[in-house]
Amino acid sequence: MADADLSALRGLWAEIQDLDAIEELLAWDQETGMPAAAGPDRADALASLAGLRHRRLTDPALRELVAVRSRDGLSAVEQAELARIRRRIDRAVAVPEELTRALARASSRGFDAWLEARRSRDFALFAPALEETVRLTREAATIRVGEGSAYAALLDDYEPGLEVAWLDDLFARLGEELRSRTAELPVLASGGDEAAPLYPVDRQRELVRGLSANIGFDFERGRLDPSEHPFCTALSPRDVRLTWRWDESDFRPGLFGVLHETGHGLYEQGLPELSRGSAIATTVSTLVHESQARFWENHVGRSAGFWRGLAASFVEHFPDTPLRTPEAMWQSVNAAARSPIRVDADETTYDLHIAVRYRLERALFEGDLSVRELEPAWDDLYAEVLGLRPRHPLEGVLQDVHWAAGLFGYFPTYTLGNLAAAQLREAMEDELGPIEVRLEQLETGSLLEWLRREVQSTITVPRKTVRS
Amino acid sequence: MADADLSALRGLWAEIQDLDAIEELLAWDQETGMPAAAGPDRADALASLAGLRHRRLTDPALRELVAVRSRDGLSAVEQAELARIRRRIDRAVAVPEELTRALARASSRGFDAWLEARRSRDFALFAPALEETVRLTREAATIRVGEGSAYAALLDDYEPGLEVAWLDDLFARLGEELRSRTAELPVLASGGDEAAPLYPVDRQRELVRGLSANIGFDFERGRLDPSEHPFCTALSPRDVRLTWRWDESDFRPGLFGVLHETGHGLYEQGLPELSRGSAIATTVSTLVHESQARFWENHVGRSAGFWRGLAASFVEHFPDTPLRTPEAMWQSVNAAARSPIRVDADETTYDLHIAVRYRLERALFEGDLSVRELEPAWDDLYAEVLGLRPRHPLEGVLQDVHWAAGLFGYFPTYTLGNLAAAQLREAMEDELGPIEVRLEQLETGSLLEWLRREVQSTITVPRKTVRS
Repeated sequence: MADADLSALRGLWAEIQDLDAIEELLAWDQETGMPAAAGPDRADALASLAGLRHRRLTDPALRELVAVRSRDGLSAVEQAELARIRRRIDRAVAVPEELTRALARASSRGFDAWLEARRSRDFALFAPALEETVRLTREAATIRVGEGSAYAALLDDYEPGLEVAWLDDLFARLGEELRSRTAELPVLASGGDEAAPLYPVDRQRELVRGLSANIGFDFERGRLDPSEHPFCTALSPRDVRLTWRWDESDFRPGLFGVLHETGHGLYEQGLPELSRGSAIATTVSTLVHESQARFWENHVGRSAGFWRGLAASFVEHFPDTPLRTPEAMWQSVNAAARSPIRVDADETTYDLHIAVRYRLERALFEGDLSVRELEPAWDDLYAEVLGLRPRHPLEGVLQDVHWAAGLFGYFPTYTLGNLAAAQLREAMEDELGPIEVRLEQLETGSLLEWLRREVQSTITVPRKTVRS
Repeated sequence: MADADLSALRGLWAEIQDLDAIEELLAWDQETGMPAAAGPDRADALASLAGLRHRRLTDPALRELVAVRSRDGLSAVEQAELARIRRRIDRAVAVPEELTRALARASSRGFDAWLEARRSRDFALFAPALEETVRLTREAATIRVGEGSAYAALLDDYEPGLEVAWLDDLFARLGEELRSRTAELPVLASGGDEAAPLYPVDRQRELVRGLSANIGFDFERGRLDPSEHPFCTALSPRDVRLTWRWDESDFRPGLFGVLHETGHGLYEQGLPELSRGSAIATTVSTLVHESQARFWENHVGRSAGFWRGLAASFVEHFPDTPLRTPEAMWQSVNAAARSPIRVDADETTYDLHIAVRYRLERALFEGDLSVRELEPAWDDLYAEVLGLRPRHPLEGVLQDVHWAAGLFGYFPTYTLGNLAAAQLREAMEDELGPIEVRLEQLETGSLLEWLRREVQSTITVPRKTVRS
């Protein structure tokens, strides 16, 4: 391939990456502070953007350049880069522009409807928008897979090659094991609605920002803002945005939310800054992304060593806390219980929440369940799997933002991420020795360095916003 | 024109409006909170966006639809709408896509360089970026006007038909009149660097947000954020964003900044919500925009009636203020002095600041002044026109964001806006009687209603971000 051709290819790809970054900004803004009335305009803008990107992705000039480059004798990395570009082009070409636009619009509207439904605690206000998103998502997935399972196509969006049968088996085995371990656990309601504000938000913000920075998140290249549901989005390695929410009667949702998102953010900030338009400098897959987030959240944040390191600062930030010793803090953040909210769940019960979502979203796409039936189905499954019933939809079907934003097939990557995080920890400790010792000094630099070397410098598919 | 053609035209135009709104969001984000390191990525994104929009504006399909519609028997409003679309297409067609992209990139980088230069109080850090922006702006303007004055083409961007000779005459007459009135005024330095924080920012925010809401700004359809230089940007009538900055030793920059931006914001929020893709529902011109801002800032905010209405709340917000009576407050906000900062200037000296900028930017584009000579030229002109010398570039050539962001030809509209605001007040009082009486009760609804009826429902060119 002539240098001019490669440069032209990079130029076209850089433009698509710019549009990706712009889309992330529009979505971030919608979730962090867009004026409430602007929803319809934002949906229009996102639809126009999706249409323009579709036209760029399906531009014959781009395909021609890819074909030319494919004829060269390429290195493994160059082949991987090209495969990534091709995968994205193929997916764009398969779905008509109009459908792509409609999906973008529906996802944006879905988010607004979800917000409104949460405010009224009424799933019915969200159901019509969700129906539309499911319908369009199924249509696009079906076009791509033909006779195959639409749900399988969605899984493939987040983890290339992930198969339904394999996941069925995994969740069956995992579910059985976990249910026998959790059946006797106490049932906890979410949120301490009436408890005293032991953990004022300003102090929480100071603590979690400091923690995030200490473990390596660079606030010159990122920021932290409030949102209804925590997430991390990356416009580039130099612009990585975390969000969080908090509870003034309980420090755990804020702290673990930020550790989780920081895990995502560290991955994004650590990506190599290659030449503009390179398709290779992106994260590997959602599974790998989640493994990084869950590593920092659980293997660091819920470890005894970490709390020995953090205890003094914790008490300084929250003088009224009843937790006075590292031991008490560590027990508090590891208390296992059957509770309704996934993101606040302990490690033992967490994957049961994922199993529920997996069964439900699969049923939605295999035609066994309609959106209208979703709320009672959700509640029944929680009764079956976790032995509790949500008291209201904020504790139930309205708790997660994913489906509102059109993300179906994403949830299983959390469980896979948990499994991968445990394996990574084992491999890390084989090399570094017990990490608890380092955490007592809040010495996390060597952990991050290990992750960057062993995990974050490998190769595959495009970046997406990652969710909690 | 067949309905299908009109609908196609509206569809194409809606997409361009969406790109405009997206550009506004990217710029707003860059000025309000983008991570510091992300500047180069933002410049790339804005350049890609400008390139895509250029391709949409120069799309033969769009031009064909405009030509078809031009053959119909059109109403005056339809003709005005079409003229607006044609004006924009013609301007896009005249400038090559590459130059359009380069200009967008340079303006974005210019803003970052300006920020950095402000932090170091060093014009030299800004000069290279400004040189590039001036060079590209001149190139684009020259392509458009051929043999004519490049600066005239820039004026026309903000106020169609505005002429250099006419402005020369205006500033000559105005300058003479104002200098005779201001020669004896005391000279004040900017900022009370060492004064006590009599006006804590939280209280200021509460007061100015409340004021803004009281005079009609709808926070469901807008927001207020901090920025280095105050501005108002509108993504749509449902998404209007004001910014402000403050000084804890002086309430005036914050309060008058917000009143000014609220004036802009009220105009944007009051635009009719017509069908998507209509080109008619935008503000008339920058002059008219500024007249609205300066009306609320000066004719309302610096009036005795307003301060009689506001005094009790003012003292409640700032119990330590030495200003204890409406009279004292009113005198404080009308104290005339020769001072270095334009946005903080009183009504008497304000237009002299504009005259300085007018002479400088004209010289920059007519080849009489290079960017390297700009700082001493600025300081000399201030000595000549206002009889003072900036102590450092924050008080001088680095004070305004406009040139950094590529806005040349904008400044004169402030003076024209001042003149128009005074005329509007006269016409308003002919109908409503003295507005002071209403302001004593903080009854501003009838003023806004009058402005919406008499000014804000008239017709001409596209919306832009408006600056302070």
